[in-house]
Amino acid sequence: MQRKIKMGMIGGGRGSFIGKVHHIAAVLDNKIELVCGAFSSNPDVSKKSGKDYMLPDSRVYSNYREMIEKEGELPENDRMDFVSVVTPNNVHFAPAKLALERGFHVVCDKPMTFNLKEAIDLENIVNETGLLFCLTHTYTGYPMVKKAREILRSGKLGKIRKIIVEYIQGWLSSEQEKSGNKQAAWRMDPEQAGISCTMGDVGVHAFNMVEYLTNLEVKIIAADLTSFIPGRKLDDDGSVLLKFDNGVKGVLTASQICAGEENNFSIKIYCEKGGIVWNQMEPNTVLLKWQDKPMETIRTGWAERSKITGIHTRVPSGHPEGYIEAFANLYRNFAMHLSNVFFNGYYDGNYDYPTVHEGVRGMAFIEAVVESSKNNSKWTNLSI
Amino acid sequence: MQRKIKMGMIGGGRGSFIGKVHHIAAVLDNKIELVCGAFSSNPDVSKKSGKDYMLPDSRVYSNYREMIEKEGELPENDRMDFVSVVTPNNVHFAPAKLALERGFHVVCDKPMTFNLKEAIDLENIVNETGLLFCLTHTYTGYPMVKKAREILRSGKLGKIRKIIVEYIQGWLSSEQEKSGNKQAAWRMDPEQAGISCTMGDVGVHAFNMVEYLTNLEVKIIAADLTSFIPGRKLDDDGSVLLKFDNGVKGVLTASQICAGEENNFSIKIYCEKGGIVWNQMEPNTVLLKWQDKPMETIRTGWAERSKITGIHTRVPSGHPEGYIEAFANLYRNFAMHLSNVFFNGYYDGNYDYPTVHEGVRGMAFIEAVVESSKNNSKWTNLSI
Amino acid sequence: MQRKIKMGMIGGGRGSFIGKVHHIAAVLDNKIELVCGAFSSNPDVSKKSGKDYMLPDSRVYSNYREMIEKEGELPENDRMDFVSVVTPNNVHFAPAKLALERGFHVVCDKPMTFNLKEAIDLENIVNETGLLFCLTHTYTGYPMVKKAREILRSGKLGKIRKIIVEYIQGWLSSEQEKSGNKQAAWRMDPEQAGISCTMGDVGVHAFNMVEYLTNLEVKIIAADLTSFIPGRKLDDDGSVLLKFDNGVKGVLTASQICAGEENNFSIKIYCEKGGIVWNQMEPNTVLLKWQDKPMETIRTGWAERSKITGIHTRVPSGHPEGYIEAFANLYRNFAMHLSNVFFNGYYDGNYDYPTVHEGVRGMAFIEAVVESSKNNSKWTNLSI
Amino acid sequence: MQRKIKMGMIGGGRGSFIGKVHHIAAVLDNKIELVCGAFSSNPDVSKKSGKDYMLPDSRVYSNYREMIEKEGELPENDRMDFVSVVTPNNVHFAPAKLALERGFHVVCDKPMTFNLKEAIDLENIVNETGLLFCLTHTYTGYPMVKKAREILRSGKLGKIRKIIVEYIQGWLSSEQEKSGNKQAAWRMDPEQAGISCTMGDVGVHAFNMVEYLTNLEVKIIAADLTSFIPGRKLDDDGSVLLKFDNGVKGVLTASQICAGEENNFSIKIYCEKGGIVWNQMEPNTVLLKWQDKPMETIRTGWAERSKITGIHTRVPSGHPEGYIEAFANLYRNFAMHLSNVFFNGYYDGNYDYPTVHEGVRGMAFIEAVVESSKNNSKWTNLSI
Repeated sequence: MQRKIKMGMIGGGRGSFIGKVHHIAAVLDNKIELVCGAFSSNPDVSKKSGKDYMLPDSRVYSNYREMIEKEGELPENDRMDFVSVVTPNNVHFAPAKLALERGFHVVCDKPMTFNLKEAIDLENIVNETGLLFCLTHTYTGYPMVKKAREILRSGKLGKIRKIIVEYIQGWLSSEQEKSGNKQAAWRMDPEQAGISCTMGDVGVHAFNMVEYLTNLEVKIIAADLTSFIPGRKLDDDGSVLLKFDNGVKGVLTASQICAGEENNFSIKIYCEKGGIVWNQMEPNTVLLKWQDKPMETIRTGWAERSKITGIHTRVPSGHPEGYIEAFANLYRNFAMHLSNVFFNGYYDGNYDYPTVHEGVRGMAFIEAVVESSKNNSKWTNLSI
Repeated sequence: MQRKIKMGMIGGGRGSFIGKVHHIAAVLDNKIELVCGAFSSNPDVSKKSGKDYMLPDSRVYSNYREMIEKEGELPENDRMDFVSVVTPNNVHFAPAKLALERGFHVVCDKPMTFNLKEAIDLENIVNETGLLFCLTHTYTGYPMVKKAREILRSGKLGKIRKIIVEYIQGWLSSEQEKSGNKQAAWRMDPEQAGISCTMGDVGVHAFNMVEYLTNLEVKIIAADLTSFIPGRKLDDDGSVLLKFDNGVKGVLTASQICAGEENNFSIKIYCEKGGIVWNQMEPNTVLLKWQDKPMETIRTGWAERSKITGIHTRVPSGHPEGYIEAFANLYRNFAMHLSNVFFNGYYDGNYDYPTVHEGVRGMAFIEAVVESSKNNSKWTNLSI
Repeated sequence: MQRKIKMGMIGGGRGSFIGKVHHIAAVLDNKIELVCGAFSSNPDVSKKSGKDYMLPDSRVYSNYREMIEKEGELPENDRMDFVSVVTPNNVHFAPAKLALERGFHVVCDKPMTFNLKEAIDLENIVNETGLLFCLTHTYTGYPMVKKAREILRSGKLGKIRKIIVEYIQGWLSSEQEKSGNKQAAWRMDPEQAGISCTMGDVGVHAFNMVEYLTNLEVKIIAADLTSFIPGRKLDDDGSVLLKFDNGVKGVLTASQICAGEENNFSIKIYCEKGGIVWNQMEPNTVLLKWQDKPMETIRTGWAERSKITGIHTRVPSGHPEGYIEAFANLYRNFAMHLSNVFFNGYYDGNYDYPTVHEGVRGMAFIEAVVESSKNNSKWTNLSI
Repeated sequence: MQRKIKMGMIGGGRGSFIGKVHHIAAVLDNKIELVCGAFSSNPDVSKKSGKDYMLPDSRVYSNYREMIEKEGELPENDRMDFVSVVTPNNVHFAPAKLALERGFHVVCDKPMTFNLKEAIDLENIVNETGLLFCLTHTYTGYPMVKKAREILRSGKLGKIRKIIVEYIQGWLSSEQEKSGNKQAAWRMDPEQAGISCTMGDVGVHAFNMVEYLTNLEVKIIAADLTSFIPGRKLDDDGSVLLKFDNGVKGVLTASQICAGEENNFSIKIYCEKGGIVWNQMEPNTVLLKWQDKPMETIRTGWAERSKITGIHTRVPSGHPEGYIEAFANLYRNFAMHLSNVFFNGYYDGNYDYPTVHEGVRGMAFIEAVVESSKNNSKWTNLSI
């Protein structure tokens, strides 16, 4: 790599949490630099946010359309290489589409779009342009998630049978959306979040993790969604029965009213000979529970013994890594892909990050869950 | 108490696991002594087992009918006071009925009967005789389970909203029933176990724990049962969506094919202000997860500060207790009840152990789950 | 075994904690029965305590001398077979000596005697009489402690290098001895406890565990004892540097002023290829930390795969056992030994429980630690 | 802040682990940029390393003397503002001294110098120049360490009594220094590491943590150092008894031959009313163990409720942070200090990072420990 990849950010201005995390994750490995942004739909906020990021005024735009247009007019080596879309769900599709159509690669927050139709359209656009698209399902960036996938794929646990996945939080157990919490406000607003709050915010992470780890597709689901706080227009909790290919079964619980839980996202996958367990709140460990021998604790620090964990870890054994490093792994893999394919023409197929198809699957999941729940938990197909 | 309560055992002979545990649990607090038994349907095995228990030959019987008849003919102060029924499910109802009809109190293993009809009949018999009946849902005997119930009932966590309960084991992940494992053999035999293996063995414990802790009734369920090992006539796994009174929701997972799990029985109950978590494999701890203050770890050792835990704990803080002590708590509470009501006429209402109605609820749960699963996971009432 | 072994108890009357635990532990496996006692130095308390244990008045004695004398006059098959001495430290030697001299076997609480001289005398008496002597270092009764010893002895971890052992409690962090806590009162009284409180109460357990697990002898120590509460005549805390045979090093910390700790007794033993870790508060688990492969979690439930753990476990995998069961393992091994050697003449050498020599080592440790601490932490030999 | 602070790095070239971590930590918060470096004593390696960092050749120097001289000749707004010294211990003092004398601020790895004399000289130079100096005792950068300090200082636990600190690793349990491990090689070489390996590498972190958390000074120590691997010239293990002001006692264990341990650095501090526990391998949690109420688990996610944790945390509750973020906190606090004092003239006294005096204390600790160990563990003063 002979120069850094240049990023433009859409959203992520003052008051945003996820924008700053995207920025840290992007720059952490010295492969990406932020060169421009349209940080807010309010031009004044966008300008001020640009100063926080230490950008020159000339590269801070009033809106994403202006940014994409003006950057497109800059010399090839000066303009941004890709955009990161870190806005609420209803402002994912339009900027991603516009950026792709003007030749910019895209990183986009999840859930990918406002609805399934937009997701399918976006997949077509990505495929037509041949440009790169990264969907930030952050948790798949953890080295021990990649290790768990490697173990499952090795077959040494035997065939998968049962999957239990839980993603439970407590932050919406009170009416945060009426207490000035901006993120709660848009997530509970159907105009901005779409047809689901909790399934779109955390349930879709759990769904994506299951399909990522197992390489199986969920075929049909039965769901029961709830809004525990009266007056809410969207779900704050749900449990979902899952059926996969080959008779595999599962159960997925996602909730944001589990008062007292922080970000308790865990997955347990049971196979013929043993199970594998991972929990986001202690992400540097994978438990390998054997039926006929002692449980093994696989750790990030064993990185040097597995290529896949080694290339996604930055510190020696026993020095914990966290969410920011997992996020940085997505950006780094995306940057390596961009750098190698577009600048050097080299591609070895190892650039592991979620793309547009995972986004389509996620939107199909959200729509099926909401439909099932409305139909008295009827078994409902994921027809994508 | 001026003498020990006298126990007769039905089942529990050589090769039985649970019989010995019942015996240890019964005698642990010096309030009960084993005086007789019909330990096996094979009279020879019964005799030999009697020697293991150091009983005189005269009090070791060839079958439970003989035992109940002969003991009934002994002088009141010599004969057994109650029977413990520790046989497979299909041999619970008849001996319990006979014992009650001859005036003996009963302790019975779970699930209470072979089917719901027997359970209802048994409840009627217990009510008619006025005798005592203890159903050994052992896990409710743990002091920290009782503490959790006390906390939930205090209201300080606010109203209950969501319950997540899991009881997962791995011991049936291979075909144990064909490998000489006697317990696996009868549990997978519909003639002995009834209509369910896993829901009858562990699912019903989870169901009972939920109703015990919350004082709520499950109203309607939707279940998906599976037999992962080909050829099995009964379920080895299942997930169940639950709806309670007052809009409370839950999800129950019970499985015996989760390879690598020992006896992983955990329950999480989320309320308006926080959640409460207990796990059977570290039973001396209850986690109290508050939404707005640090998590508290409640321990058995704080016994002296809570009457309910203090009277169910035998050792000082930091000295772990386990399954046998929880089991002994059921027997002790039953023995105290027997001793006080029948011998001393005193009853202060504090004799906390599961009784025949819990058994009826459990059988109703098992039947509803099997029916729902056969009907494509249709929501099905628990009409008891 | 054709009859139960008969126990007489010295101490353990009303208000005693450890007496009841001895009794439960003794009877738990149906091999021992309590037949008599001298439960208190106050004859009236002794009588009342006898009723609690449901003993006939004729077998409840006013003092241990009376008990040993009178029991000795009973027919051989009626009289007690052994005494359990569960009194404060200053009343261990005399009753143990008297019982042995009259032909009774002895179980004795730790620390074995009031001082090292008594310990050496007692060892001589035991050796001369050829009777059995069990010292209740309870923690060595845990099945996973025995498993850890087996692993260490197998050599698969390589040579031992470094040992870190901690036994820390908080119950003496305030002046319990002046608040009516009888146990605190005698433990802090040099007339009853001897020259040390904390080292005699918990430090000696830690010392015994180290020598039990490693089969190594501590050769020389350097200690720093403290009395954090002003006015205390005995230590409430201490740290000790240890040197063993063969260059092995260690550090032992024992404290009863670690406010907030319950009974936090842990040991870590590091060898050439890995380490082994056990903690009393989660006693059913041993961690096997390898330097070049994933950590293994060894569990009691794997009992069926190791003879030594299997014979010291009573429940199936995942059902926790605790302190009482560990204690019962000492009594059971002692009872098996008694029964086989004295009644049946059979002895296979497998009766694993601490004996009088462990008691001598323990007293030597306590005296060396106190001497070193008085001499400005000078390295001091354990010359036994 | 109107521009980024400019960093020059000394050491940290290809093959270095800690250099990359320093760089990530420095740039993570967008406040610092790397502008130049003398990455290796081998000019060719330095040049190649400069390309990895995407620096122009003109700012990559052959050695630190050249770098300091040439950068000093650049215009004030172009030249580096500070140097980071990330070389082996024997190359800390000279470059730090030279940089300070030429007007550059300094960040320096620990232990601060080769010996105590250098440390004292360096403190004098820092004081004379008035320039800023940051010593990278990384672990004090964790938000929960800062929270623990805040709790201890609040006095709500009462007076401190006993401190138990352990820093144990296994990576030197085999002869890594002869297997091509460069870091092991220099750490075991007295010419490069100084008089200690393990005490200089990890023991000094433990010592620093104790003094940072408690605000107490260690007054006198008794140490026993060992080299378990034959032929080693420096220690690979040690245990140290500690005495502080006011009768506080402690024990410190540092080891690099605890095979199977990764980076197990834990500290337990016991006070009159409770204890506080922190472990580096789960750094986002502090346990508050009360003697008279349930243990509280304090988490990073409660950041919004404590200024000190909030400003050192970048993600919401339940999203783990790790070693890199702790390291970045040192750099950020240093950068804020630099920026405010030197560019804006504003200083609110809140720039919490270890400085030169902590380095002097650390070197005094190392020298006292080695001296005590040579003198048969004699109590030895820390006379600084």
